[in-house]
Amino acid sequence: MTKLNAITDLHSPARALRLQHLLDHKTKPLGSLGRLETLALQLGLILGTEAPQLTQPQMVVFAGDHGLTAQGISLFPSDVTWQMVENFLAGGAAVSVLARQHGLALTVVDAGVAHDLAPRPGLQLRKIAPGTADASQGPAMTPAQCQAALDQGAEVVRSLPGNAVLLGEMGIGNTSSAALLMARLTGLPIEQCVGRGTGLDDAGVQRKLAVLRQVLARHEQAIEPLQALAAMGGFEIAMMAGAVLEAAAQNRVIVVDGFIASSAVLVAQALQPLVLQRCVFAHQSDEQGHARMLSHLKAQPLLNLGLRLGEGSGAALAWPLLESSCRILAEMASFESAGVSTADGDISPGQGA
Amino acid sequence: MTKLNAITDLHSPARALRLQHLLDHKTKPLGSLGRLETLALQLGLILGTEAPQLTQPQMVVFAGDHGLTAQGISLFPSDVTWQMVENFLAGGAAVSVLARQHGLALTVVDAGVAHDLAPRPGLQLRKIAPGTADASQGPAMTPAQCQAALDQGAEVVRSLPGNAVLLGEMGIGNTSSAALLMARLTGLPIEQCVGRGTGLDDAGVQRKLAVLRQVLARHEQAIEPLQALAAMGGFEIAMMAGAVLEAAAQNRVIVVDGFIASSAVLVAQALQPLVLQRCVFAHQSDEQGHARMLSHLKAQPLLNLGLRLGEGSGAALAWPLLESSCRILAEMASFESAGVSTADGDISPGQGA
Repeated sequence: MTKLNAITDLHSPARALRLQHLLDHKTKPLGSLGRLETLALQLGLILGTEAPQLTQPQMVVFAGDHGLTAQGISLFPSDVTWQMVENFLAGGAAVSVLARQHGLALTVVDAGVAHDLAPRPGLQLRKIAPGTADASQGPAMTPAQCQAALDQGAEVVRSLPGNAVLLGEMGIGNTSSAALLMARLTGLPIEQCVGRGTGLDDAGVQRKLAVLRQVLARHEQAIEPLQALAAMGGFEIAMMAGAVLEAAAQNRVIVVDGFIASSAVLVAQALQPLVLQRCVFAHQSDEQGHARMLSHLKAQPLLNLGLRLGEGSGAALAWPLLESSCRILAEMASFESAGVSTADGDISPGQGA
Repeated sequence: MTKLNAITDLHSPARALRLQHLLDHKTKPLGSLGRLETLALQLGLILGTEAPQLTQPQMVVFAGDHGLTAQGISLFPSDVTWQMVENFLAGGAAVSVLARQHGLALTVVDAGVAHDLAPRPGLQLRKIAPGTADASQGPAMTPAQCQAALDQGAEVVRSLPGNAVLLGEMGIGNTSSAALLMARLTGLPIEQCVGRGTGLDDAGVQRKLAVLRQVLARHEQAIEPLQALAAMGGFEIAMMAGAVLEAAAQNRVIVVDGFIASSAVLVAQALQPLVLQRCVFAHQSDEQGHARMLSHLKAQPLLNLGLRLGEGSGAALAWPLLESSCRILAEMASFESAGVSTADGDISPGQGA
C-alpha cells in the first residue's frame, strides 16, 4: 500500500494567492466564473503550477462481484458485471462512449469478477478472487485480500501515464457495500445511506435495508477503516481506495464519479484526510445516500444531472469542465492585456485606443 | 420578423415513444442517465429524428449598449461593451476560449454598441443605433427600431449554417433590461428580478432597484411583450429574441445562456410559447432573478456552477452535454446487441457465451 506520509499537504498560501490574482485579473467580473474558478485554483494547487495542464487523462473502471448478491439485494444478476466488462471493452457502454468523446484513455480492471475474462488490450487482470464472500455470513474478504486489493490499486495507477485519473466502477451489488461503508465510517443510520441501486422498488429497498442491517450487526467490531473495508467492502472498492491513495501520493488529479467511487474516497480519506485535496467530485448522484456522503466529505460536486449509472460516466461528463478551468487560466486575456476598463472605470495601461 | 405560425408544435407521441424505447434498451439501468436522457429525447424531437446529430454549432454573441447606464446602475463603464467585443474577436474572452475548446464557430453581432467597430471576419455589423435611449427618460427604442432589431436577429440566424445556435450577449447595463422585462412579463415584483449584475454591493443594488422602479412606473402602459421590449429592452436582447424566433421556425436547437439570454426567450415565448420546445437552458446563473425566471419558464437548466458572466460562457460549458446525449443514442449498445442480461435476469438473444 502507498505510504500515507507520502501524501503531503498541498496548502500553499503563496501559490493560492498567485492563482487567485491571475483569475481576478482575467477579463470578467470578479468571481463571475463561479465554480470554474475554485476548480482552476484547486488544479493549480494539485499540479503545483500557475499554469495547470491536464495530460493523458486515464479513465479507470474497477470491476468486481459481491457475494452479498445471494441475499437478493440487487435488481440485476451478478452475470451483468462480466457482461458489462465485455461491453466496456467493446466500446458500447456509456463510459466507453463518453471516454471516446473526451479523449480519455479507458482501462478496465478485473478486481474480482466472478468470471474468467480473456486478456486483451485495455483490460488489466488483477483478480483477487472471483467475487467477495457473502458479507451477511462472514467477512467479504480476508485482511490479506484487502491489503492485496489496495496494493493492486496502487499498481494500476503506477502502470498508467498522465497527471489525472478518473475513477469508475462496475459491480452488481456494490451500492450495498458503499452504503455499509458509509454507515460505518460516517456514523449515519443505514436508512440514510441505502438507495435504489439499479432501480429497486420500495419493497426491494426494504429487503435490501433488512439485509444491510444484519451485515452491520454481524460486523459491529469492524470499526477501523480497513477493518470495515475487509468486512463489508468489495474488491473494486478496495482497489479504488488503493488507487486514490497512490494517485494522491503522486499528486495526480483524482476525478471521483458517483456513490461507489465516493465510498472508496471515504475509506482513503479516513486513512489520510489530505487525499481530499486532490479529489474533484464530478457529480451528485441520484442514489439517495450520495448527497449526504458528499456533504460529509465537504465536497462540492460539479454536476447534478440525476445520474445513477456509475461506470465513471459522471466523471467523464464532468471532464470538459476541468479542461475549461485550465484553459481559462492559460488562454483568457487580462484587463491589462486586452485593454478593457476595470470596475472603477480606469483605462488599463495596455489599451491601444 | 419571423412568422409566428412558422413555429409548429413538435410534439410527436410516436417519435417520443420510439426515442424512449431506444433509450430504455441501452445497456444501463432504466433512466439511469437522468437529465441526459430527457435531453436526448428533446434533441430527437427538435431535429425530427431518432438519430439526432448536431452540426456546425454556432455561438452568437449579441452586443449592445444601454442609455440607462447614465443612471449609475452598473459597476462597469459602458466602454467595456465595445472593449469586450474586441476581446471576443481577439480570442481572449471566456466565450472565445470556451468556443475554441468545443469547436463552436463564434460570431459577434454589433446590435447597438455605442462605438464604431471596424469590420472583420466573425463580426456582423447590424447596429440599430449607438446604444438605446435612457429608459428612465423615455422608451429605450422606438417601435420601428424594435422591429428592425427583431428582423436583424432573424437575419443573423439565416446567415449561419448548422442546426444549433448558442445564444450569448454583452452589454453593460443589460441585467437591468432583463430584470425589467422579467418583472413586466412575469408579474413578479421587481425586487425578485433584480440582482448584483457584474458585482454591485448592497447599496448599489438598492440604487439600481430605485431606478428600475422608476422605469417600470414610467412605462406602466407597456404591457404587451413587444411594447415592453421597446420601452425597457436592449438592442442585443431584441435581436436575440428575433434570433430565437427564427431558429425556432427552422427547428434549430437553441442553447440559452444565462439571465439576459433567458429574458430574450421570455419575450419570444410570450409571442409564441412553442419556441420553448426548441430551447435547452444551459445553466442557472448566480444572478438572483434567474432561478425564478427559469422556474416561470418551467425550464430545467443543465448546469448550476455559480456563473454570472454572460457572453454565452454557460452555453459553451453545457455544450458537451448535448453532444453526449446524441452519442448515447447513436453509439451505446443495447442489451440485445451487447449480450447483457436484463433486470429480470433473462439472457438476451445476442449473447454469445
